[in-house]
Amino acid sequence: MTRFGDLDPPQRLLMGPGPVNAHPRVLRAMSADLLGQFDPEMTAYMNEVMALYRPIFGTENRWTFLVNGTARAGIEAALVSLVAPGDRVLVLDFGRFGALLKEILERIGAEVSSVDAPWGEVVPREAVEAAVARVRPKVVATVHGDTSTTMAQPLEGLGRICQEAGALSYVDATATIGGMEIAADRWGVDVVTGGLQKCLGGPSGSAPITVSEAAAARIFSRRHVEKGIRRDDIQDGTGLRIGANYFDLAMVMDYWSEKRLNHHTEATTMLYGARECARVVLEEGLAARAARHAAAGRAVTAGARALGLTVFGDDRYRMSNVTAIVIPEGVDGEAVRRRMREDFEIEIGTAFGPLAGRVWRIGAMGYNARKHKVLITLGALEAVLRAEGFGTPAGAGVEAALAAWNDG
Amino acid sequence: MTRFGDLDPPQRLLMGPGPVNAHPRVLRAMSADLLGQFDPEMTAYMNEVMALYRPIFGTENRWTFLVNGTARAGIEAALVSLVAPGDRVLVLDFGRFGALLKEILERIGAEVSSVDAPWGEVVPREAVEAAVARVRPKVVATVHGDTSTTMAQPLEGLGRICQEAGALSYVDATATIGGMEIAADRWGVDVVTGGLQKCLGGPSGSAPITVSEAAAARIFSRRHVEKGIRRDDIQDGTGLRIGANYFDLAMVMDYWSEKRLNHHTEATTMLYGARECARVVLEEGLAARAARHAAAGRAVTAGARALGLTVFGDDRYRMSNVTAIVIPEGVDGEAVRRRMREDFEIEIGTAFGPLAGRVWRIGAMGYNARKHKVLITLGALEAVLRAEGFGTPAGAGVEAALAAWNDG
Repeated sequence: MTRFGDLDPPQRLLMGPGPVNAHPRVLRAMSADLLGQFDPEMTAYMNEVMALYRPIFGTENRWTFLVNGTARAGIEAALVSLVAPGDRVLVLDFGRFGALLKEILERIGAEVSSVDAPWGEVVPREAVEAAVARVRPKVVATVHGDTSTTMAQPLEGLGRICQEAGALSYVDATATIGGMEIAADRWGVDVVTGGLQKCLGGPSGSAPITVSEAAAARIFSRRHVEKGIRRDDIQDGTGLRIGANYFDLAMVMDYWSEKRLNHHTEATTMLYGARECARVVLEEGLAARAARHAAAGRAVTAGARALGLTVFGDDRYRMSNVTAIVIPEGVDGEAVRRRMREDFEIEIGTAFGPLAGRVWRIGAMGYNARKHKVLITLGALEAVLRAEGFGTPAGAGVEAALAAWNDG
Repeated sequence: MTRFGDLDPPQRLLMGPGPVNAHPRVLRAMSADLLGQFDPEMTAYMNEVMALYRPIFGTENRWTFLVNGTARAGIEAALVSLVAPGDRVLVLDFGRFGALLKEILERIGAEVSSVDAPWGEVVPREAVEAAVARVRPKVVATVHGDTSTTMAQPLEGLGRICQEAGALSYVDATATIGGMEIAADRWGVDVVTGGLQKCLGGPSGSAPITVSEAAAARIFSRRHVEKGIRRDDIQDGTGLRIGANYFDLAMVMDYWSEKRLNHHTEATTMLYGARECARVVLEEGLAARAARHAAAGRAVTAGARALGLTVFGDDRYRMSNVTAIVIPEGVDGEAVRRRMREDFEIEIGTAFGPLAGRVWRIGAMGYNARKHKVLITLGALEAVLRAEGFGTPAGAGVEAALAAWNDG
């Protein structure tokens, strides 16, 4: 017998940098019964997932599928499959998740260079161009929106810079996919990965990925099929074997292709969830969804300012779905978060590294990027700030947020 | 708009080597709403999961938790965290999943030796002892039950052999956990990993793991915390940095400990599922559950023999939860599987490598290790075999299976 009762999590509004509350349709879809790994209905669902994520990534890439793990698993699968030990890689580093790309690449054994921006800014295009010319990398890697700083790196034209230098490009879009526009083909970037638990409105645990033909060729050149399942119709490449089995995208793509090479056992329930996330996104429409996230970002920013708070970072490059608010002098940031959670059942985020203890992060993502949730959060924040001794103009935050939301 | 409709998978009985149908309670638990990653209720659920899996692994190990990925992710996390490039490792290889251990270890850069048994047998204890003495490995790795051959390696005493040689030990229990006894402490083995999608009766996508103090010490000696989140209370080790970030169990254990070091975003919905799997298992009781799987294995074996079929492999070491049946001369194995699926909505398994095309594999695992499901499967198989021109004694399979089930 077990001494732990039925699951009964509190009904909490998650307005931090993710995870956020999943769309109820997604959670319901995940209760469908399982299928055999190679049953025709299962492989049909896999093919549907591939088709559903292409528009979400803004791509026609054949190789658009899921990595079975959290968003971080998608990042590592992309990097370990693209980059061999000794390869020169350039990372655009403007926050904690840029630092994560460097750290994963170091473990892979890459020769890592970076072009950095201070937290709260992005890397200027000229700096990227100069760094690419200097480093001559085989791969350029960047985060799209880095929730640690709330900044979104502009990616228009990145692909051209890389292609002209003969480099492949990788973008970590975990925190923006489904909320801000992802335009893999127009940007000309080769590999983009995401996660479900932010603007896609699902739970963490599945990482959508898209891979260009050029990147797929590089990856397949490193194909080394496991001895136990070798087949005459699948040839090994001449490149260095990929350093991980689970993250070997050559084998994962052979699994998602009509070859159906046996690899992991696809996480069916997470696939059901990923499929429903995509259906919800495409039914709303990508443009409408981006507009809704932009309205939420405007509303949080305007509301915070009307409460007399300072918003962190460069306004021009702010992510629409997460906003960092400077903790005012004399206010205990953790006490505010605790009251928000305990009195209002609202979670807002803390911060990392140089911003730890300096900012809160308020997210409005996916199912939670909605007018009433932003207004409720700002109303609660006002009450909590007042209780913590920080005088705010009564009602001003909610009013300003509402006006900003409607001011499309 | 999307052109794909609501999820509506067929109501299929999955009697292959896994995945199998999940317990409905597990799927329902997975529809609970999400929590913030470090919310006290979330970390309380994480602690409950640790407590729930200890008896299932037969251990008191503090470090009993989940790796966020399929069973294969658990295997790779264990091996890449335990084994550094150049380390000597001995693998017990008696099927496809032993070959997988070798292939993962080769990618890690280990010096891999193996002691092999033909498919359908297990590695004799004396052969293990001799190989350990010869190789002097730092780590000994084995599969418990290898579904490719349906054999279960006896593990009683393995820990002593390893400890006397100064080696750590790893066991892949993906296919047996929750169905056959796992006795990590009594066996004296250091790291054991599993998956939800077989005898635990859940979906693929979460890998329970247990790690002994000795193994944890080795892993923490390799700790290198990411630069972006270094803290004064967490010291790096002097060992070689672990080759993967996502699978770095030092960081994953710091995340599951009271340190709550930020790493991946825990896959909450999969954690809810893993928690409910464990509750279902412990409510039934481990001994009762093992007995139910044993009854199912007896019934499938007796039923197949009564139909005039040959059961593959050594009876003494047969896994209780999956049975390989030799495809009779002149029968088209794939035609039988197709009729089983299309006429009866029952999936039975195909096979790999040397057994491809030679055997079917019938699983009776977790929620599907039940009398009526075994009887229905054997009844259907009889009808299909007759339709495919293989004469069987009418009704004999079901009758023999029922007798064998009841003959505890």
